[in-house]
Amino acid sequence: MPKVSQEHKEARREQILVGAQRAFARHGYEGATVNRLEQETGLSRGAIFSYFENKQALFVALVRRSSDRFVEIWLEHGYRALLEAIAHEDPAWLSVQIEAARRVRTDERFREQLARVDEDLKAQRESRFARLRGVTRDDVPIEVIAQFLGTLANGVAFARVTDDPLPDLDHLMTLIETGVGPR
Amino acid sequence: MPKVSQEHKEARREQILVGAQRAFARHGYEGATVNRLEQETGLSRGAIFSYFENKQALFVALVRRSSDRFVEIWLEHGYRALLEAIAHEDPAWLSVQIEAARRVRTDERFREQLARVDEDLKAQRESRFARLRGVTRDDVPIEVIAQFLGTLANGVAFARVTDDPLPDLDHLMTLIETGVGPR
Repeated sequence: MPKVSQEHKEARREQILVGAQRAFARHGYEGATVNRLEQETGLSRGAIFSYFENKQALFVALVRRSSDRFVEIWLEHGYRALLEAIAHEDPAWLSVQIEAARRVRTDERFREQLARVDEDLKAQRESRFARLRGVTRDDVPIEVIAQFLGTLANGVAFARVTDDPLPDLDHLMTLIETGVGPR
Repeated sequence: MPKVSQEHKEARREQILVGAQRAFARHGYEGATVNRLEQETGLSRGAIFSYFENKQALFVALVRRSSDRFVEIWLEHGYRALLEAIAHEDPAWLSVQIEAARRVRTDERFREQLARVDEDLKAQRESRFARLRGVTRDDVPIEVIAQFLGTLANGVAFARVTDDPLPDLDHLMTLIETGVGPR
């Protein structure tokens, strides 16, 4: 048997995640049957479940993926880039986050798995805060500034999910910079 | 037959709306069957549909109701009160708004009816702007300030729907006031 390269494996894993995200966004968790997962990923159930233990593991990986990606964009390209990404990307990730919040309320095992994702996210908080120090006002705790920026980013996401008009990001940034910039 | 008072009618209408909101939030539009509407409102289908022409009319009335309420809170009690309401109220209204956005994409008649709601909301914009004039900076168009504040309010709503921790409103207000206050 030929050895499958690591690169190929990662591309395949990503293909599964992107297709599954579409399936969960369209049909919800329960409605995303194995048949639909096959259709949306273009892969067989055998291939899909050689990468993920089961449907729940696939779903948890998706929740983690979008959180990780947005933190990464913020850290590497800055807050403005984060807003751009939220404003312009396919909002399927958002439907998955909302679906996840719904499942957290009703499914204990799922709640435990997501608690682990949350802990990992918290561990990254320090790096997000480090990025803000020095470029923001110092008379307000850095956690408050981070939460303010997070709330605004979520507001842009909300406009996507409710089909409200998106705010002009240049204008938004002017007010944000006055709000959090050095005094 | 005894004459039903206007007050009684309005209370009954409100009872239907609150129960139906719960039904739509829990089961989605399709899943909110007439049986479930009866259960959640505690009223018979006869009573429900003497107040609303059909299920769609009831749903549109709900979409309008939550927009109207939040605009009213903002105008009468100020922006901070709006954030409080969004942070602390039953977020069933939000599920209805998200469900409405989903239906707008797939149902043309529904899209037309919601366009009318949007027009009415736009007509109220001037009063919202009037409330901001004088108490906010004048080097940025008033529409931009209103959209910034709307985005933040939506971000708080988003935290409700995804079960994220809510921001501390006192802290949030400090940054908002710096951002949009008179220069």
